[in-house]
Amino acid sequence: MKIAVIPGDGIGPEVINQAVRTLHKVAPAIDTSYFDLGARNFRETGRLLAPETLDEIRHHDAILLGAIGDPTVPAGTLERGILLEMRFALDHHINLRPTKTMPGAPRVLAGDVNVDLLVVREGTEGPYTGNGGGLRVGTPHEVATEVSVNTRFGVDRLLREAFERAAVRRQKLTIVHKPNVLAFAGSLWTRAADDLSALYPDVEVDHMLVDAAMLHLVTTPARFDVIATDNLFGDLITDLTSALGGGVGLAASANIDGSRRNPGMFEPVHGSAPDIAGRGVADPTAAILSVVLMLHHLGLSREANAIDQAVQDHIASRGPESCSTEEIGERIRSRVGS
Amino acid sequence: MKIAVIPGDGIGPEVINQAVRTLHKVAPAIDTSYFDLGARNFRETGRLLAPETLDEIRHHDAILLGAIGDPTVPAGTLERGILLEMRFALDHHINLRPTKTMPGAPRVLAGDVNVDLLVVREGTEGPYTGNGGGLRVGTPHEVATEVSVNTRFGVDRLLREAFERAAVRRQKLTIVHKPNVLAFAGSLWTRAADDLSALYPDVEVDHMLVDAAMLHLVTTPARFDVIATDNLFGDLITDLTSALGGGVGLAASANIDGSRRNPGMFEPVHGSAPDIAGRGVADPTAAILSVVLMLHHLGLSREANAIDQAVQDHIASRGPESCSTEEIGERIRSRVGS
Ligand SMILES: CC(C)[C@H](C(=O)O)[C@@H](O)C(=O)O
Ligand SMILES: CC(C)[C@H](C(=O)O)[C@@H](O)C(=O)O
Repeated sequence: MKIAVIPGDGIGPEVINQAVRTLHKVAPAIDTSYFDLGARNFRETGRLLAPETLDEIRHHDAILLGAIGDPTVPAGTLERGILLEMRFALDHHINLRPTKTMPGAPRVLAGDVNVDLLVVREGTEGPYTGNGGGLRVGTPHEVATEVSVNTRFGVDRLLREAFERAAVRRQKLTIVHKPNVLAFAGSLWTRAADDLSALYPDVEVDHMLVDAAMLHLVTTPARFDVIATDNLFGDLITDLTSALGGGVGLAASANIDGSRRNPGMFEPVHGSAPDIAGRGVADPTAAILSVVLMLHHLGLSREANAIDQAVQDHIASRGPESCSTEEIGERIRSRVGS
Repeated sequence: MKIAVIPGDGIGPEVINQAVRTLHKVAPAIDTSYFDLGARNFRETGRLLAPETLDEIRHHDAILLGAIGDPTVPAGTLERGILLEMRFALDHHINLRPTKTMPGAPRVLAGDVNVDLLVVREGTEGPYTGNGGGLRVGTPHEVATEVSVNTRFGVDRLLREAFERAAVRRQKLTIVHKPNVLAFAGSLWTRAADDLSALYPDVEVDHMLVDAAMLHLVTTPARFDVIATDNLFGDLITDLTSALGGGVGLAASANIDGSRRNPGMFEPVHGSAPDIAGRGVADPTAAILSVVLMLHHLGLSREANAIDQAVQDHIASRGPESCSTEEIGERIRSRVGS
């Protein structure tokens, strides 16, 4: 098995270092090849993601990514040119973002509320398609548009995955959209879900307005099992759910091509965090949990569970002191298989 | 002074009844005319908002609305045909949604975190413009689009209001958008804010990605003073902030035409809540606080403050038992001016 590793910018390389060492602890035979993509490479070569690089990456079984984004490069250049480019080129239409409160993890909600949910976010449609435009830019008469593009094909394949995931969890699927305002896209989502639900009679389907979902996620998060939603709504919801699950330091994410024609990409939900980069203080747990998602996806569940258990034990037993990136990695690895 | 009252659907009439009685307690001379808009009128007449009704409403000093929306009418029909129609026709480009934790109100966040912020949401642009379309609807090849329309004119006038509001609060303005993905609209918002900030040197401006804002709102809400944001992002953010401020039962909202050519519309953030309608258990506090926003907007600050103080005293002193709509209204009114 061959993994393409993209450490990226900021704290990316720091957390990826720990993630790869943890991966090798449970699966020493897995090959890793490194790809230097991000701000440094862009400054040196002027390139974001060269077609030949993408081709090389494509011939791996999975991709492990740290973070992309740098304050010295105009906002969005690297994110759109590398991260989103890869999601679209590799048809990563399924974005899985699980949240589960772990004993010992920080809690932002009052009371002893447990969260155990999975967001199945669409990854290749919605307002992420780059279909925007500008007219009279820089004048007082400027008009800027952004087009959300949604297809029955795209919504169907995403929802099917969500139904499948719900079927093996608590059989509860919440479709989150905004049909009362976004009439065309919302109606497409609603009809697609209604049609599919006939094929999954055991899955209870609930439709919820995205604004109401924001509220229910913090007041009654236990009502959610699987949430299926659009690309942009999923982006907002999963930053919120990651906060509920103990912060972005613990949130991992899988970008998957459901047809398995292309390798999946596994990455922490957090960004490159330039403010703390280079200081060795970033929490590598989310990157390590991204390895867990990757191993599950590759069918290496025994190895995945070994790391997952080590992370949970580490979090349940850690003290209040803050540890370095290296120390956290070491502590988790020391618990793997022990 | 003449107020147009639109009780609307579901719990709307129940909470509006309490709100108007509270209004009359502090300002008995204010005239009210009632407009029967919503599901019942739609079923009887087939009309949503007739042009002549809109014209009549326009000739009032302000509008007080309960809630619009009914499960027996196709989703979005009443919301788009009445609520959004009115926002656009009356050019309600400024939507103000304040959140302030009140002693005694329910808290969803752990720890003793205080929230005191104002969301200034754009009300007439973004994805709310109804610029969507459907192609091959109902077939496996369906394409649905939604267009977010943003103008320099629209963003400028919204941001100017946000700067003005920040200047008389804690001088901190957070611009919330998603320029790393929504490149055209995001860039317009960023440039407009940067240009305006030169005119408000005392206001500290911060740009935050909307996904990050979701996280920071629940982890470090005290960092926010005024948030300026787009129509859709504002919709999601304010359901979240209303949860942080004690729930939608306490969240009020002002829709304002900054030029003051049209009357403002004041309404609770909550919807028509058909599940509890008719039982007399809806909390009228948000509707009563909408009256507070309305009185402030009309320059009747003494009257506004009297009700505001009564609500705060009521919440600080109420017991754990749940009261009826009528009882809550009575208790608040009994504290007005006492
Ligand atoms: C960096 C950005 C382009 C990305 C997104 O918006 O999808 C990120 O926020 C995420 O959630 O993975
Ligand atoms: C009812 C709906 C159209 C409305 C909106 O989306 O603006 C509501 O959610 C709000 O926030 O006032």
